Amino acid sequence: MRILILGAAGMIGRKLTDALLAEGTLSGRRIEAIDAFDVVEPAFADGRVAASGGDISDAATIDRLVAKRPDMIFHLAAIVSGEAEADFDKGYCVNLDGTHHLLEAIRKQGDDYHPRLVFTSSIAVFGAPFEEPITDTFLQAPLTSYGAQKAIGELLLADYTRKGFLDGIGIRLPTIVVRPGKPNKAASGFFSGIIREPLNGQEAILPVSEDVRHWVASPAAAVGFLLHAATMNTAKLGPRRSLTMPGLSVTVGEMIEALRDVAGEEVARLIRRERDPVIETIVAGWPRNFSADRALEAGFRADPDFHSIIRAHIADEEKRRQS
Amino acid sequence: MRILILGAAGMIGRKLTDALLAEGTLSGRRIEAIDAFDVVEPAFADGRVAASGGDISDAATIDRLVAKRPDMIFHLAAIVSGEAEADFDKGYCVNLDGTHHLLEAIRKQGDDYHPRLVFTSSIAVFGAPFEEPITDTFLQAPLTSYGAQKAIGELLLADYTRKGFLDGIGIRLPTIVVRPGKPNKAASGFFSGIIREPLNGQEAILPVSEDVRHWVASPAAAVGFLLHAATMNTAKLGPRRSLTMPGLSVTVGEMIEALRDVAGEEVARLIRRERDPVIETIVAGWPRNFSADRALEAGFRADPDFHSIIRAHIADEEKRRQS
Repeated sequence: MRILILGAAGMIGRKLTDALLAEGTLSGRRIEAIDAFDVVEPAFADGRVAASGGDISDAATIDRLVAKRPDMIFHLAAIVSGEAEADFDKGYCVNLDGTHHLLEAIRKQGDDYHPRLVFTSSIAVFGAPFEEPITDTFLQAPLTSYGAQKAIGELLLADYTRKGFLDGIGIRLPTIVVRPGKPNKAASGFFSGIIREPLNGQEAILPVSEDVRHWVASPAAAVGFLLHAATMNTAKLGPRRSLTMPGLSVTVGEMIEALRDVAGEEVARLIRRERDPVIETIVAGWPRNFSADRALEAGFRADPDFHSIIRAHIADEEKRRQS
Repeated sequence: MRILILGAAGMIGRKLTDALLAEGTLSGRRIEAIDAFDVVEPAFADGRVAASGGDISDAATIDRLVAKRPDMIFHLAAIVSGEAEADFDKGYCVNLDGTHHLLEAIRKQGDDYHPRLVFTSSIAVFGAPFEEPITDTFLQAPLTSYGAQKAIGELLLADYTRKGFLDGIGIRLPTIVVRPGKPNKAASGFFSGIIREPLNGQEAILPVSEDVRHWVASPAAAVGFLLHAATMNTAKLGPRRSLTMPGLSVTVGEMIEALRDVAGEEVARLIRRERDPVIETIVAGWPRNFSADRALEAGFRADPDFHSIIRAHIADEEKRRQS
């Protein structure tokens, strides 16, 4: 089978591609080729991968990729929240037009082409005030352009699926923790930073109260969601094609307690509390807890606990250092 | 003030334009000019109306209309449900691209232009299975392309408003009963037909059970919603800019009972019961009841009862015959 991955150079895209290459099959079928696409050409040292770079807001680029008739498409490409907020045009071009072009390119292939399309959406489709927990029938009222673009992508995905043009499933990812790599300036960055930096022997700043509760999943869980979405029986989903993925609802205090359990008091002591009212205000508008019943019924599985998220991160870093 | 009405030739568009011309003012300001636009040039015998026809999926057409910098814009133009389902491209061109072009045209006018935009959405943004009644926090899960396009319009409207490009409000209209004119083939047509035809001394077919419950409003109530949306204080709405309008939740049996009360047994006897399984299936997927709390708090008012809807229709028809 042939697989197309849009957004293959991102953190999740790389992990997904690596997982597919390592497994070698999907739904029991041998993976012959992976078209790995991103704005910058992704680098994979594997003969099965054909990498390319380009702009998905250009319909001709998308048409070329879809003309190869991949059996499976993962659409992970997006301008992220902060950038879509700062650059209104760029966010709509890539996140709305790009997604719409992809759906149109598939449709234009004709009646004999009906690929599975896995679309990564986000809990940013929801906006405060929330019900607690947020259920599967809560309205989409995003408070960012990114969230609006993802919510629109979900509506298009459902309609193109309902009309029989493709077999779409949207998965709303929780905040991914622990993100590897350097600290970034995203308002959500501290959720990873307070674990990642102390484990590296570095100080991390905690800008909010330990009472702050959030909805998180590990990078490995995110890859697991994508693979399950690619292989599950979508018929039982009915017309509602986007699902909130099961995460862990944890407080910052619980995260720190888990870090202390796993890595010791000395590591946990590297977290410096320094409240930042700007970040506190942003975080106060984020969802805290979901009951992801539909996803659980469909077989998606959350991380078992925050301890295992930390241990998986430590193991990943160890593997990275050795490779 | 200058007012732009997109979709001015439709049943609601004409009634809205007539109401504005009769009143002569809006929010205490004199109406100097109304640009009445539709796919076919609307006809109004009033010097204040500049009528034009064209295609709102053409961005240049929209740019020209918005360049006049209307203080108030009513966006009623749409490909209706049945046609958007039959002609996928046309529905997306007009209902999605057209609405997006309008928002972009307003934004491109710059920081000193910030009109009120009243967007007619629909209860078609909701799809079964429903909660009973459907509240203001129920998810948008449309089961038609028309509903998807309206839900996307709502998301765009909210985001452009949040970013400060305009002052948008979306109103989700109930099914409008009694629609004047000839019977049409819409699946919802019988809701008007069973009142309108018997009042004209003609037989009407009722294709569903009398137990069927639906959410309806009169044409006059719809015009009232539009005028209230145009003049209300939108600041108190917050970021959720689209509201389900208050309707009447009535059963077909209650409608017929009201017809009997208002027009007598002989008229009500002109309804012939002839179940149509196709229509029954379609109607079973439609919403039956809402609690439109936000709209009621914002001052929108439903028709008092179905008797008054029938009486208003009779009065309208009487007026039409005399003019």
